[in-house]
Amino acid sequence: MSDNASSVAPEIMSAMVAANDGSTRGYGDDVYTQQACEQLSKVFEREVSSFLVATGTAANALNLAAITKPHGAIFVHEMAHVHTDECGAPEFFTHGAKLLPLTGENGKLTPEAIERGLEDFPQGVVHHPQAQAISLSQVSECGTVYSLAEIEALSKAAHSHMLRVHMDGARFANALVSLGCTPAEMTWKAGVDVLSFGATKNGAMGVEALIVFDEALAVDLQFMRKRSGQLLSKGRFLGAQMGAYLKDGLWLDMASHANKMAALLAEGIESLPGGRLRFPVQANQIFAVIPKPAHKALMTAGAGYYPWGHEPDGVSVRLVTSFNTSKEDVAEFLAIATDAAAAA
Amino acid sequence: MSDNASSVAPEIMSAMVAANDGSTRGYGDDVYTQQACEQLSKVFEREVSSFLVATGTAANALNLAAITKPHGAIFVHEMAHVHTDECGAPEFFTHGAKLLPLTGENGKLTPEAIERGLEDFPQGVVHHPQAQAISLSQVSECGTVYSLAEIEALSKAAHSHMLRVHMDGARFANALVSLGCTPAEMTWKAGVDVLSFGATKNGAMGVEALIVFDEALAVDLQFMRKRSGQLLSKGRFLGAQMGAYLKDGLWLDMASHANKMAALLAEGIESLPGGRLRFPVQANQIFAVIPKPAHKALMTAGAGYYPWGHEPDGVSVRLVTSFNTSKEDVAEFLAIATDAAAAA
Amino acid sequence: MSDNASSVAPEIMSAMVAANDGSTRGYGDDVYTQQACEQLSKVFEREVSSFLVATGTAANALNLAAITKPHGAIFVHEMAHVHTDECGAPEFFTHGAKLLPLTGENGKLTPEAIERGLEDFPQGVVHHPQAQAISLSQVSECGTVYSLAEIEALSKAAHSHMLRVHMDGARFANALVSLGCTPAEMTWKAGVDVLSFGATKNGAMGVEALIVFDEALAVDLQFMRKRSGQLLSKGRFLGAQMGAYLKDGLWLDMASHANKMAALLAEGIESLPGGRLRFPVQANQIFAVIPKPAHKALMTAGAGYYPWGHEPDGVSVRLVTSFNTSKEDVAEFLAIATDAAAAA
Amino acid sequence: MSDNASSVAPEIMSAMVAANDGSTRGYGDDVYTQQACEQLSKVFEREVSSFLVATGTAANALNLAAITKPHGAIFVHEMAHVHTDECGAPEFFTHGAKLLPLTGENGKLTPEAIERGLEDFPQGVVHHPQAQAISLSQVSECGTVYSLAEIEALSKAAHSHMLRVHMDGARFANALVSLGCTPAEMTWKAGVDVLSFGATKNGAMGVEALIVFDEALAVDLQFMRKRSGQLLSKGRFLGAQMGAYLKDGLWLDMASHANKMAALLAEGIESLPGGRLRFPVQANQIFAVIPKPAHKALMTAGAGYYPWGHEPDGVSVRLVTSFNTSKEDVAEFLAIATDAAAAA
Repeated sequence: MSDNASSVAPEIMSAMVAANDGSTRGYGDDVYTQQACEQLSKVFEREVSSFLVATGTAANALNLAAITKPHGAIFVHEMAHVHTDECGAPEFFTHGAKLLPLTGENGKLTPEAIERGLEDFPQGVVHHPQAQAISLSQVSECGTVYSLAEIEALSKAAHSHMLRVHMDGARFANALVSLGCTPAEMTWKAGVDVLSFGATKNGAMGVEALIVFDEALAVDLQFMRKRSGQLLSKGRFLGAQMGAYLKDGLWLDMASHANKMAALLAEGIESLPGGRLRFPVQANQIFAVIPKPAHKALMTAGAGYYPWGHEPDGVSVRLVTSFNTSKEDVAEFLAIATDAAAAA
Repeated sequence: MSDNASSVAPEIMSAMVAANDGSTRGYGDDVYTQQACEQLSKVFEREVSSFLVATGTAANALNLAAITKPHGAIFVHEMAHVHTDECGAPEFFTHGAKLLPLTGENGKLTPEAIERGLEDFPQGVVHHPQAQAISLSQVSECGTVYSLAEIEALSKAAHSHMLRVHMDGARFANALVSLGCTPAEMTWKAGVDVLSFGATKNGAMGVEALIVFDEALAVDLQFMRKRSGQLLSKGRFLGAQMGAYLKDGLWLDMASHANKMAALLAEGIESLPGGRLRFPVQANQIFAVIPKPAHKALMTAGAGYYPWGHEPDGVSVRLVTSFNTSKEDVAEFLAIATDAAAAA
Repeated sequence: MSDNASSVAPEIMSAMVAANDGSTRGYGDDVYTQQACEQLSKVFEREVSSFLVATGTAANALNLAAITKPHGAIFVHEMAHVHTDECGAPEFFTHGAKLLPLTGENGKLTPEAIERGLEDFPQGVVHHPQAQAISLSQVSECGTVYSLAEIEALSKAAHSHMLRVHMDGARFANALVSLGCTPAEMTWKAGVDVLSFGATKNGAMGVEALIVFDEALAVDLQFMRKRSGQLLSKGRFLGAQMGAYLKDGLWLDMASHANKMAALLAEGIESLPGGRLRFPVQANQIFAVIPKPAHKALMTAGAGYYPWGHEPDGVSVRLVTSFNTSKEDVAEFLAIATDAAAAA
Repeated sequence: MSDNASSVAPEIMSAMVAANDGSTRGYGDDVYTQQACEQLSKVFEREVSSFLVATGTAANALNLAAITKPHGAIFVHEMAHVHTDECGAPEFFTHGAKLLPLTGENGKLTPEAIERGLEDFPQGVVHHPQAQAISLSQVSECGTVYSLAEIEALSKAAHSHMLRVHMDGARFANALVSLGCTPAEMTWKAGVDVLSFGATKNGAMGVEALIVFDEALAVDLQFMRKRSGQLLSKGRFLGAQMGAYLKDGLWLDMASHANKMAALLAEGIESLPGGRLRFPVQANQIFAVIPKPAHKALMTAGAGYYPWGHEPDGVSVRLVTSFNTSKEDVAEFLAIATDAAAAA
């Protein structure tokens, strides 16, 4: 189970097919893109600058480049996707800024960790990389969700040291429905400066939006996007995806469904003899330990997940539900696991 | 008229819809991508390393980065797209290599120009940027097509100085059907080391392949692609596009049609009183001067092209035909222009 | 004859020896550096931010990085040292900005050339590298000197398009005494934003100052200098050099002498049968054509210069006089050349 | 007490003055540089490629760039100077490679830490930065010295994973005399691939050598040095420094003296009531905790050191002895500290 392996939501695929009717201007200067950007402003309850790109890696790396100079440094959780899983994309796009890994429970940064980081890398001293930003993942890499109070506290700590705040929202929708708040509350009202607004993991084919809440940061982004090969000539198909994604709350419905399936799955795993959750399940990701026999049986049955490290008492796994995970999928998964665990 | 503004060929759109059925592994590790890469090896009559990306800018910039070190230099025609129209993407991906513009008739590089370039920037002298590659556009930026003999002569000159040869094939298919040769003949048999194999301008939604003929150059490209945010998680949709593009010669049929429409259009423009071609029309691009009244009438009628500089005797225009330009489109265009020119 | 091959002026060497007495704080936080910076503010008749580095390449590249973003472009003369002779240092320090070569007589940029450049690379269009600066060399690479009016006209043209103005003053002192104006007049009063103030070619061991006339541009330079390995731990020896260089007008006396020797040499070459100057000699560089026999005789005699391309009527040479070129050196050089030319 | 604040050894200063006699060719193509490079080959008992630069930051960053690609990663100790104190220079010169901090006692990397690092960042997986090198500091940032066996074990672990080995030898001489081995034994015989051979902290004015033991790695370095503004035009003064440094064992004598003074100082601090060493003193650096009153008295007396963090039982200080620290300096320091500690 992985949201990258998922297919595209039918509503989004249909919108792409529909957008293929006739000619439009190229390079994002089309009505689909324009409408999508307007929808994004509505979603965030204010004027925002938004830039569509095809991958989350590009969205994160461009956003970080917008808020960090080449001699700058960015505080991240040591498990942050931008740190461990993007083959150095942030370093490439920022021209060599440094990602400084911090520790924190449940995959979360804390104001205290940032303060400690600044003690190790004092600002203004010419010998040190200059801390200029923090990046937090909402949903976090442990599947947990920052509360609004936590985001506000982080932003406050960051801003008090002139650090900009980036939110990696690859699973933004899942966090949002988990908190039950508005997009505005989870971002600019809580101090977020730039957001990577993901859609690909939640049913789109390949589209993410950079959402910039401080207009001054947006000036160079159009050039940076082009220069990084992220300005698609037939840009209307990015616009069409994002438009359909946002239309009539499709994005929220899909995320809500995925989260529910994750909750079901988590409940079942906790009930497994020898099964346990490694982190609270707050969105659509489950980090769990399952007994070896259950793991073997699931692999044999062709369950699509990867082992995620080893624990003394079983196999550590990462499961991700998506908009098209069905109750039956969950039930089948749990049945196989339960039978195997019982047989052992 | 522009091939960027075009829609997606129905066969390709259908293939994308079909590929949406079920789950696959992410990040290009899927059967669609695998099959597309195998097809590319067949097309080029040998094993090639190919990497799919979403934009031509990324394809060109990654290819140039594969053959040029940061302290290196690349000889290009002064009108080369990589030099003038990619907002510095080659410089970004190569980490600052220098593009050295050379002059040449009809948008073409010549061995002589390269020799002169090397006199200005002698290799091995520590003060100078180190020439390490040439980049030629086939079709060229003037709409002309290099003959096989011209490509061979360029490659020979380049290789004699240890320069690698990159071909920007954004309109590869149009050049190919214009020459009536095989893909192998137009590339590795003529000395090309790396190729940007374009599909987007010829009916795809957004897919280009880096084709690497020297395996040693391919080693780092998978990491460079990821790091530049060009590895799509739902990679199957790139694979599906490329597969459909190559299937049953669709790509060649589309390019052939576009070239024919360009020839018709060129013929008509030459017959216009006051109309003339600025460069030989050898593929699907027409650089022409048309009388001002014709230009005005066409603009009024909503013809989708851009003025392309000014000439004393009229308006300089660039017209690009595509797979879905119809005879009727051409006839209508010419009728408007002829009437206006006659009325003046 | 070359000012790079020259020794260090005795006054400067003595100052370095004197500065070796006792301990100081490291990394430029010493009294010698502080005093040198204060002297520079006096020289320029206003508060300036100055940063000492060890090479002209670093000074130029850091200055260009201070005024150009990675997606930016810099107009330069096609013969500019930053373009042809720094192995891509400006591209490295700017993270890939593009140097756009322009033509111009006598090695000089003109407002017209900049306007033409902007037509080819229109600002604000996302596809093009974004012109953000110009760089002019005073003395130029042809040995000519921009008049104050020429600098003002260039700056005006540049600023009207939001382009910043960099002056490569590797031979600043030679230009200054040639014009007979003040440092202020030749720089900020004429619109220069950042200056590479050279001392190495005029008798120092290895020190150049970045002079920044717009304080906002100076903010990041201390970090950029450190990050590029240009912050010397025993910085006092850069400070001591610059201090001695500026003290009691030593720098002006040395440049004045070098220019006089160049004038003498130029006069003698023009009198040679078959000798001619390729460009007006306005500072301490002579680009001349001398008859082959004269060239051969000079090479045999061990004259330290390099041939600089070939002309139909003789050998093209570049001669550079320096603070320690003597009248006797010049006379001997001319005697050898004259005898050989006469004997032929 | 700091070796950066120290003056230049008289023998080295004299050599620089002597080298000022007459003209030489520029840019390192002079007899002084040539002889220094030959001396370095003798010192290392084999042919080595060596490149002189003016700062340790440049030496380290260029060396790391020679062994790491932009998408690569380098394992370093979390306290490594290249990680914390060079304002991101390694990231700049490598074009964005990632420094991955590891923990280890006494400032030392271990094979185990490297293995753990590779578990977190598995090689060959396209999503992760690709580990390609390790960097170790000899003397370490805690003042400790790796034994030959430790270096060999590290190199073996590194090479078994195709990681190159860089040694930051800013205090190479101090480590060498501490171990009592040969330069060859401490480097290439123990598996080191590239070395930053420091001289500045041990009595030179500003010169460091990149020593490359694998010739293939040296090919691009001359261009990389030029491009980073590290090729000095009057290169003879780097050559002269290095020549004098190596001549007649001056470098070893100076390091030996500095180490002896450090031992004396360490002994005295350990005898202080309330004084203790934080790490074993094995070269010329002392990390110690001294009682607050002693610290206050020393500061009042103008002792030139910086507090280095705080410990519950006193003030944490870093003291560095150098070639010109005298027994009297040490005695005076200890007397002030002892009196103040006793009075408290």
